[in-house]
Amino acid sequence: MCLTCNHTIHRKNHNFGWSRDFVPALTCKPGETIHFECLDAGAGHFAPGSTAEAVTTLDFSKVNPVSGPVYVEGAVPGDALKITFRKFIPSGLGWTANIPGFGLLADQFPDPALHMWSYDPSSLAPAVYGPKGRVPLKPFAGEIGLAPAEPGIHSVVPPRRVGGNLDIRDLAEGTTLYLPVEVEGALFSIGDTHAAQGDGEVCGTAIESQMDVEVTLDLVKGANLQSPRFSTPGPVTRHLDGAGYEATTGLGPDLMTAARESVMRMIDLLAAEHGLAPVDAYILLSVCGDLRISEIVDQPNWIISTYFPRIVFS
Amino acid sequence: MCLTCNHTIHRKNHNFGWSRDFVPALTCKPGETIHFECLDAGAGHFAPGSTAEAVTTLDFSKVNPVSGPVYVEGAVPGDALKITFRKFIPSGLGWTANIPGFGLLADQFPDPALHMWSYDPSSLAPAVYGPKGRVPLKPFAGEIGLAPAEPGIHSVVPPRRVGGNLDIRDLAEGTTLYLPVEVEGALFSIGDTHAAQGDGEVCGTAIESQMDVEVTLDLVKGANLQSPRFSTPGPVTRHLDGAGYEATTGLGPDLMTAARESVMRMIDLLAAEHGLAPVDAYILLSVCGDLRISEIVDQPNWIISTYFPRIVFS
Repeated sequence: MCLTCNHTIHRKNHNFGWSRDFVPALTCKPGETIHFECLDAGAGHFAPGSTAEAVTTLDFSKVNPVSGPVYVEGAVPGDALKITFRKFIPSGLGWTANIPGFGLLADQFPDPALHMWSYDPSSLAPAVYGPKGRVPLKPFAGEIGLAPAEPGIHSVVPPRRVGGNLDIRDLAEGTTLYLPVEVEGALFSIGDTHAAQGDGEVCGTAIESQMDVEVTLDLVKGANLQSPRFSTPGPVTRHLDGAGYEATTGLGPDLMTAARESVMRMIDLLAAEHGLAPVDAYILLSVCGDLRISEIVDQPNWIISTYFPRIVFS
Repeated sequence: MCLTCNHTIHRKNHNFGWSRDFVPALTCKPGETIHFECLDAGAGHFAPGSTAEAVTTLDFSKVNPVSGPVYVEGAVPGDALKITFRKFIPSGLGWTANIPGFGLLADQFPDPALHMWSYDPSSLAPAVYGPKGRVPLKPFAGEIGLAPAEPGIHSVVPPRRVGGNLDIRDLAEGTTLYLPVEVEGALFSIGDTHAAQGDGEVCGTAIESQMDVEVTLDLVKGANLQSPRFSTPGPVTRHLDGAGYEATTGLGPDLMTAARESVMRMIDLLAAEHGLAPVDAYILLSVCGDLRISEIVDQPNWIISTYFPRIVFS
């Protein structure tokens, strides 16, 4: 129960897409706080005991449900919606899948794989991964956005300038996100909650985990924002960085190739140092490895580094 | 003076390039520690009082001198050279330039620009930038590498699998770097020392600053490394992250375009919030803004975020 919330959007109020034509589940005033019940990205498809077999029966027309939409009074195109993340209330269960055809190394990992997670939703103690892995948690919402101006129903897979599948790890408690409004009322929705993710989300899924979210919605009139921006109240990697990092690099004239190579080298390193199967290392990197652009100016070779937090095996 | 060093490479022992044919300045045994006197990337071209005019007279055949090379006994192709950064001894002076034709936004910033820095080399207190900016410092070497197997003299501009112009911000004190050896003796050199840099080095230069560096060189026999990797002893962004971040995003199917857009949005934000001229914001981002890949899997739109540490204006 949220004592400070003005409204609740229940789990049943969800859509598998973004559209200006969806009927609002709620109309709110700027400045109000709303409690959203969110489904996980699989809409309950995976459960404790699920195996890789369950990945093959996932219905792609039923992924990434978003709860909403909320019509914000007074919002018009040109404004920005200011979203403050007040609280995440996680469920304690999660899953990470390698879905064939999806992910940065889809060609290298053609077979379905699944890891089911269990974690303490109260303490948010690091989640166990194999005999020695402990993955620090930091809940956030992967899907968060507004309805695009263009009519029709838009896929939940890509992010857009109005938001959507942003998958930005640092949209966590205390952060403020600004999204450009393209339709009257903004039509805000949220879902695809994650208990942890690395920058990049390399295998295509995070620790996908059903949770509730409390957000305050406000307006910045006439902001004329061109793309999403956000403001974090403090450090963003202190849950990960205490024991330092192992980092591998990919370099060359193409950023995508460099990114792929840096991740492949880290998979090799984790396999060699910790005896992980390559697909298990790939899944682990998706939930806690960070992709950074070390340099993007030394022609013709750019460098992408994959940072793996040593605290996971400390 | 370095009490624990076995050797010193003096400033005069430098080259403007990488080559297997350069005569070693020194032969050392694995495990030895060497004190390198490094020149700055401009080889002394810029001095206190220099203006943007000095950028136009920079001789590109005389940039990024690297001190060395050092022949490491027993190093053969297939080994890795293990480089441990013991100490950086900075000079207290530095420069950051926008060099026409060079940098992530070269098309947007066609005119030369120069900022000269002065900082306390003992305390390493944040360096002053304008009336309110304070940039945290973290010295490292931008150029660090070995001779490529391929004969001839290779440019100091791009990094390669044997290193070179890596410009990886976290190759700082305490970090260990591993580079693949391609020629007998490895032929290690180092230079292009930086007092601070953001991940990406967006305008093409960091706080370029002459300093001395102490490194230990060791061998990992038969490592068969494919590209550089490194290991940090602890956190890498705590000098920057204390007051949180402002972040802007660029998104779309091309990582380079997304990176450019995220940086342009941050330049707009810094101009609006702190009254910086766009070129001054661009230079500031080069020395303390970080480019991260937020997601690289949500087809067809990837997201690059530019993180600006609020501590700079706190």
